[in-house]
Amino acid sequence: MIEADFAVVGIGELATPFGPAPKTGQALSQLRVEQDAAVAARAGAIVYVGRRTDFERQVRLRPHATVLDAQGGTVLPGFVDAHTHLVFAGWREAEFDARLGGATYREIAARGGGILSTVRATREASREALAALVRERLDAILALGTTTVEIKSGYGLSTAEEIKLLEAVREAARGHPVQVVPTCLAAHTIPPEYRERRTRYLDRIVEEILPQVAQTGLARYADAFVDDQALGLQEARRVLEAARDLGLGVRLHADQFADEGAAALAAELGAASADHLEFASPEGLERMARAGTCGVLLPAASFFLMMERRPPGRELVRAGVPVVLATDFNPGSCPCEAMPAALWFGCLWGGLRVDEAITAATLNAAYALGLAETTGSLEVGKRADLVVHAVPNRYHLVYRFGVPRVRAVVAGGRLVVPAGDPPQLR
Amino acid sequence: MIEADFAVVGIGELATPFGPAPKTGQALSQLRVEQDAAVAARAGAIVYVGRRTDFERQVRLRPHATVLDAQGGTVLPGFVDAHTHLVFAGWREAEFDARLGGATYREIAARGGGILSTVRATREASREALAALVRERLDAILALGTTTVEIKSGYGLSTAEEIKLLEAVREAARGHPVQVVPTCLAAHTIPPEYRERRTRYLDRIVEEILPQVAQTGLARYADAFVDDQALGLQEARRVLEAARDLGLGVRLHADQFADEGAAALAAELGAASADHLEFASPEGLERMARAGTCGVLLPAASFFLMMERRPPGRELVRAGVPVVLATDFNPGSCPCEAMPAALWFGCLWGGLRVDEAITAATLNAAYALGLAETTGSLEVGKRADLVVHAVPNRYHLVYRFGVPRVRAVVAGGRLVVPAGDPPQLR
Repeated sequence: MIEADFAVVGIGELATPFGPAPKTGQALSQLRVEQDAAVAARAGAIVYVGRRTDFERQVRLRPHATVLDAQGGTVLPGFVDAHTHLVFAGWREAEFDARLGGATYREIAARGGGILSTVRATREASREALAALVRERLDAILALGTTTVEIKSGYGLSTAEEIKLLEAVREAARGHPVQVVPTCLAAHTIPPEYRERRTRYLDRIVEEILPQVAQTGLARYADAFVDDQALGLQEARRVLEAARDLGLGVRLHADQFADEGAAALAAELGAASADHLEFASPEGLERMARAGTCGVLLPAASFFLMMERRPPGRELVRAGVPVVLATDFNPGSCPCEAMPAALWFGCLWGGLRVDEAITAATLNAAYALGLAETTGSLEVGKRADLVVHAVPNRYHLVYRFGVPRVRAVVAGGRLVVPAGDPPQLR
Repeated sequence: MIEADFAVVGIGELATPFGPAPKTGQALSQLRVEQDAAVAARAGAIVYVGRRTDFERQVRLRPHATVLDAQGGTVLPGFVDAHTHLVFAGWREAEFDARLGGATYREIAARGGGILSTVRATREASREALAALVRERLDAILALGTTTVEIKSGYGLSTAEEIKLLEAVREAARGHPVQVVPTCLAAHTIPPEYRERRTRYLDRIVEEILPQVAQTGLARYADAFVDDQALGLQEARRVLEAARDLGLGVRLHADQFADEGAAALAAELGAASADHLEFASPEGLERMARAGTCGVLLPAASFFLMMERRPPGRELVRAGVPVVLATDFNPGSCPCEAMPAALWFGCLWGGLRVDEAITAATLNAAYALGLAETTGSLEVGKRADLVVHAVPNRYHLVYRFGVPRVRAVVAGGRLVVPAGDPPQLR
């Protein structure tokens, strides 16, 4: 018999990607789907996934084991949100109202709004205050089904401030059920005090920030934003090559508003991911596919920015680029922290099918964060991170858009968001 | 002193349209906005709206009065959802998956899917079963902040079945906190058994269904769907003229997929509203403005249908048509029941500003349902229907899209959805 200290029963449908990651092309939409299923875990790891009848024959629950009744709901792996800017202070709803009135994101950035207004507010916040904000937000995303999250710095833009942000993330993550992957985005943009001497800021990143981050283990990845309001292609190359030499993984904000050739740069650098990609060229995508660089789509952001250009979901699938879906949670271009919304927009705005979106938001996302061995699918031996959704099957997660329908969340084999309110409408 | 048996205090921001309805053009975005406000009610009606300091001087709470602490949240009138097809049986998620794979809504309808598959499932359901479904859905929309809803029949398409649907609505609404306005949409489409003799079905509507509905008071409005899969313009005219002669108000599904001249027909008939309008001509909108016919936008539906054409929010405002925002909740073209989502899509997809969207989802929507005297704004003498949102100001209702953030709901001066979970992120 398989011993277990945690189980989920009463599952109406269980759906999970499986096997080696990443999934591309056709494989992207091949899920394991079981009706009337059960899952069991021991010491935080999955020990059984399968049919309810076999579960009863094969699994022995220890005394005091926790048993969660999914009440006919749908069970998926916990969401892996592979792109957020979750450590910030201050919202920017006034700027948003200006955008509804016709101002563009780039215009707002050019007149000192945008990222720089968040930089000001974030610099004013203490490390402790930021850690408290991060902790509240981790609680909020956990309740929405996210059990693993990447968090980028990037609103500090000086050595001391970038370190402060990453320390706040580390402090908030300590003991929290959400698994946190920190990324240093010192190369988010050039801070105003360095506008006339850009190279000096890049020197800082390369000579001070990244070495400190690598030495202290405050981040696993370095990232850079290639855009005409941020870094040029060669500037980003310099930063990311330095990061790579320090043993950090690299990722890239690429081709969001224009084709800057950033997708190809990500491939050339062997980046874990290139993110956004609305304007990436077919050649750039091809190179990413050959390099195995993931394409992280942020469809809620491009929707919120009211961009004409849609996220290239089908283009990535056709090119054979491993597709990842993430929120981009940040106070400027995506104040939405909900992975369920990333699924709606990934399908209805980004061209993905439901099963593709599920893989992109779980196993492929874990792969993009270097965690596919332990995270992102419901398979024996992996972390018992799963979500019960109050819907009869996985299609309803997108079909019934507009309301996250999370009923319960399990992280590391513990029930961390108890079975709650959302009625399962028949 | 003003006596009260219910009060809301601790309001961070109160925002409400005010004065005579409907609001058009500039007037659409003029809200009354108060910081640190309070509201009081007696016997279900508002007796005080204003600043907290004046509240303390002017209002005397009766013993056992209920006092709700908004904890710095934002208070708006309860949402008025002026267009739903909430009485149906069976979801259509498989058809949705086909659409993601490339099939169009019209293609699906043409091969017997679409509305007709819901007609089959709904006919099979008993009146009691339908009433139970409606009651569950009323509970669900109430928890999302909707305190008044219009519900259309239209999945019965025979005398007995249309009556059954409207009786199920009446049964479910009895004693429920949500105020329900029933509409007879027997003219939703031509049922398959009448395909070769369309006029006979129209005879049924005009000679049997509408007279029975009018006599029994089972509906206040009649509606018709003008579309090449449904009714022609002259067929709709015949139905709605008959309804008008019977004393029913009229409304019209107009110009959703092509310019059929339906907006102009709505104006000519003095309809309360013309709904959808993606392809309405400028002349049609002009006539609506002159007739005072409301334009009901259903932006979540056009988003879900992945239409290229966006809802004409700015066009309606410019033409002086009173703008209304609604969900269109139904199992085919908008399985989303959430008015918060109608606001996101109304702004980010339909071109409205936040304050316009609030007016469109409350006071103008009440006007479109003939209820503006009692419903849709926070003013002394009106129904105490209000929602506490867990956000610091009204802009966050759209800015922080993707998650409905309702904290508590008050209907008829009673706390019907108690202060709940959603954390107010700082």
